[in-house]
Amino acid sequence: MTKPLKVVGIGNAMVDILSHIEDGFLTEHGIEKGIMTLIDRERAAVLYSHIGPSMEISGGSAANTIAGLASLGVATAYVGKVKDDQLGEIFAHDLRAQGAVYETPLAPADHAAETGRCTVMVSPDHERTMNTYLGVSEFLTAEDVDTDQMANTDWIYLEGYRFDGPDSVAAFAKAIDACKAAGGKVSVTLSDPFCVERHRDAFRELIRDHVDLLFCNEHEMRAMYETEDLSIALRIAAAEVETVACTVGADGAYIWQDGTEYHALATDVDIVDVTGAGDLFASGYLFGVITGRDPLTCGQMGCVAAGEIISHIGARPEADLSELFKQHNLL
Amino acid sequence: MTKPLKVVGIGNAMVDILSHIEDGFLTEHGIEKGIMTLIDRERAAVLYSHIGPSMEISGGSAANTIAGLASLGVATAYVGKVKDDQLGEIFAHDLRAQGAVYETPLAPADHAAETGRCTVMVSPDHERTMNTYLGVSEFLTAEDVDTDQMANTDWIYLEGYRFDGPDSVAAFAKAIDACKAAGGKVSVTLSDPFCVERHRDAFRELIRDHVDLLFCNEHEMRAMYETEDLSIALRIAAAEVETVACTVGADGAYIWQDGTEYHALATDVDIVDVTGAGDLFASGYLFGVITGRDPLTCGQMGCVAAGEIISHIGARPEADLSELFKQHNLL
Repeated sequence: MTKPLKVVGIGNAMVDILSHIEDGFLTEHGIEKGIMTLIDRERAAVLYSHIGPSMEISGGSAANTIAGLASLGVATAYVGKVKDDQLGEIFAHDLRAQGAVYETPLAPADHAAETGRCTVMVSPDHERTMNTYLGVSEFLTAEDVDTDQMANTDWIYLEGYRFDGPDSVAAFAKAIDACKAAGGKVSVTLSDPFCVERHRDAFRELIRDHVDLLFCNEHEMRAMYETEDLSIALRIAAAEVETVACTVGADGAYIWQDGTEYHALATDVDIVDVTGAGDLFASGYLFGVITGRDPLTCGQMGCVAAGEIISHIGARPEADLSELFKQHNLL
Repeated sequence: MTKPLKVVGIGNAMVDILSHIEDGFLTEHGIEKGIMTLIDRERAAVLYSHIGPSMEISGGSAANTIAGLASLGVATAYVGKVKDDQLGEIFAHDLRAQGAVYETPLAPADHAAETGRCTVMVSPDHERTMNTYLGVSEFLTAEDVDTDQMANTDWIYLEGYRFDGPDSVAAFAKAIDACKAAGGKVSVTLSDPFCVERHRDAFRELIRDHVDLLFCNEHEMRAMYETEDLSIALRIAAAEVETVACTVGADGAYIWQDGTEYHALATDVDIVDVTGAGDLFASGYLFGVITGRDPLTCGQMGCVAAGEIISHIGARPEADLSELFKQHNLL
């Protein structure tokens, strides 16, 4: 029986505040380059007062992945919490306008926290550094997970970042149980090397016991298995999970499946902003999976989608991804 | 005596919601292409529910002009009303982060209206159509005008759009009186042909009695003087005001000053979104004026700044305008 949904993503719902920074800005403000750091509302306000003119684009890692899939016409849904405020309205609009189902109850207008926002600082070398105020996205609980929805999807896609909230681990468990019980599959992204450091044991258990498809980049993979040798880390992961899809920046991605390694090449694009590269890789890869492609084609679709997102500012697709797949002879 | 400020702009403070639309969208929703139409909060909500994924960038015509000048290191201030809400915070941040003084009192959080927003719909031919919910920007009154600030600037820059609020006409009068009494000069933009239609007599009186520098485009100029012949309209305007700077799209701009016509050529750029072309033309032109350039050089600076803004989405400059002026041998 065909299920009504193909992929349901769960993660931190937020709006990105995108700004270009000079090289000295990060050291001046004590910010570590290239990673995601959690900050509180006060720190977010101080940081905002120091960054230059910005633009706001809906973000959130898993939400970006779902938006990418929705833009390809895939039946998707998203679970993540925003508040009944202007940024929450923007987030919900952009996801629904892309065609995804989004029904997570809003945090009420009198909630002490606001809709989450991610200050994305793009350096002259196009690297992105993220300081995230989680806001109400942190308050996602098992109650926000609709078991019927989880049973009605082929795949769920869990964002590692959401491990930063204890209640959300319960939400993940509920989603996994409902999805698996109905014959669905589970994909996870490790999200960030420091997120992996914070929750290595929980990730490890999740991967071994429940995950069918693991997304990560090389830094997260090394952090996960505590080795500098990527090939060792990949082999350990490949022994624990059916498929591992690990992006390696300009080198594209390595896919491990059934004991075989595949290497998908990155596309040749002028990089503007790497924000969302991993998220859109996952969109492309999952599109390949649900349309029955082989692992290498899935990886190439991931690379093409990632290439689109890094060619402009913001982590939501602007070009027609299916058109790009056709141009790369993938469709 | 040198004044601390060079240009103070007064206008509708708002955040732009930018979206790409297909060709049929405007006719389907009964929206007239290429112009600015005022809409109420309800209509804005309905429209928002129909447009695709968007991005938010601070806008407001005069605010864009001031942001452009501030990015060039010019001492500027802006007067326009936002609310104590998230979009208001974004607007204020982006202007101040660009270096402009912005001290207009916020409308309180319990005000019935919200911070103004402009739904900017960009068509495949790069034309932009704007539907504007004025929100609290409509409630700018004479009380919001600080006469000391108006006396302390070489120029004020008035946005024609703001004629759509009766209280703001009084605010304009107060600003003009304080500025002129202290030896300052007055520039105005006609903003939009339909805005001109709505307020032709008030504009005419303002131009004849107070304006030193008039900005407009060809459509506004024709509407202002009710003739299809641009050269006739320009000659009438030139007889009433010291300088007329009229943009003519891909043909650049015509400048009339002291009975002489100058023709500044448009720069050769790949057009992405024409939003803000007129606003940034005014930035460039005013930069020329306050740095003592001749009318043709002022016009060319206007064209270069306009060329920058139409080469990307959004009406706030992304590239370094002074660097572009150097590349065009204007600095």
